[in-house]
Amino acid sequence: MKIGIIGATGKAGRALYAEATKRGHEVTGIVRDPDRAGSILGTDATVLVKDAFDLTADDLTAFDVVIDAFSTPPARAYLHVDLAARLVSLLRETQTPRLVFIVGAGSLTTGEDHRLLVEDLRRLAEAGTFIATPENQLKELQFLRGVDDVNWVAVSPSRTFVPGAATGFVTGKDDLLFAPDGSSQVTTGTMAVAILNEIENPKHVRERFTVRDE
Amino acid sequence: MKIGIIGATGKAGRALYAEATKRGHEVTGIVRDPDRAGSILGTDATVLVKDAFDLTADDLTAFDVVIDAFSTPPARAYLHVDLAARLVSLLRETQTPRLVFIVGAGSLTTGEDHRLLVEDLRRLAEAGTFIATPENQLKELQFLRGVDDVNWVAVSPSRTFVPGAATGFVTGKDDLLFAPDGSSQVTTGTMAVAILNEIENPKHVRERFTVRDE
Repeated sequence: MKIGIIGATGKAGRALYAEATKRGHEVTGIVRDPDRAGSILGTDATVLVKDAFDLTADDLTAFDVVIDAFSTPPARAYLHVDLAARLVSLLRETQTPRLVFIVGAGSLTTGEDHRLLVEDLRRLAEAGTFIATPENQLKELQFLRGVDDVNWVAVSPSRTFVPGAATGFVTGKDDLLFAPDGSSQVTTGTMAVAILNEIENPKHVRERFTVRDE
Repeated sequence: MKIGIIGATGKAGRALYAEATKRGHEVTGIVRDPDRAGSILGTDATVLVKDAFDLTADDLTAFDVVIDAFSTPPARAYLHVDLAARLVSLLRETQTPRLVFIVGAGSLTTGEDHRLLVEDLRRLAEAGTFIATPENQLKELQFLRGVDDVNWVAVSPSRTFVPGAATGFVTGKDDLLFAPDGSSQVTTGTMAVAILNEIENPKHVRERFTVRDE
């Protein structure tokens, strides 16, 4: 399949790029900095050098799937919402490309009262340094849940999302997942495998799922 | 003040154009069809001929206030959401212009259980012909409620919103208003007066208010 990855040089994006390439897909990194892309994805990587906000409908419909693995500093975390809204706006009343959004674990629910994890995160001493990101990714998911005329899926990692190779994994829907030892972790490699599985064999249409390492 | 009106030739827009002009503001109708604008607003009207989705940040920041009185057929009602998201995206981290959004009465709550009016509207026999509009204006409002870095206000009419001269009026916040005789109605003239009052003397910052005829 033709897969475009926004944010292909980021933490999640580079693992997705590697996994999709390994599986033989035609993968394009949508990047702003071609030199950075060359050093991270390899100088033979296929790239579309463009700010994600400048993508046109024609750019998007050249792909079967576009993965939004965009990242930005917390001070401009509203860009998560704005980019999702823009991609959706360009693709209203279509089925292709499928849009895959990575939305942080903060938008998952947890505990017996099914509170949002972001509520717990807000109480951390260092919340001010990062909280805008999970808050805006929650808004992004809430926005997506109102979109019924575009083929989207959202994926949340577990609470800890670290670079690393794929392991076996477990998926869930909207509740934060924990391993039997109480940890809640997923590697970028596992996320990439779970997302590529979903791309090749769609099971979640216009909903969010979550993944943890086994 | 410099006031731009998106949808200036529509039902709400033309009343807003007239009221703002009467009060001596520098009013610009943002319109797609200059001939239609000439016949509705007068050939001496100041217009910016542009699709609302093509407005740039520079276009917007030329105004103190931009009123989104956009309308579209129900089949493309998602454009209400998309236009709000686009305007917000162009103005993140600003205070000026203030954005005024007209969002239909369906997004108001009603009854002792504070249900959304749109839930009642969905049960009407003819709902299929129009329900996408109140549903998407509700999504528009929900989107706006997550926006804390743009100076926006939203205004809902009463259940019946009819062309007509201004009367005395009553305002509320999120509950549908009823007159003592049980009617829930506001004229376009009344809405225009209430909105211009709010523009000249802001009382509702990043919230929605509603208006009924007295």
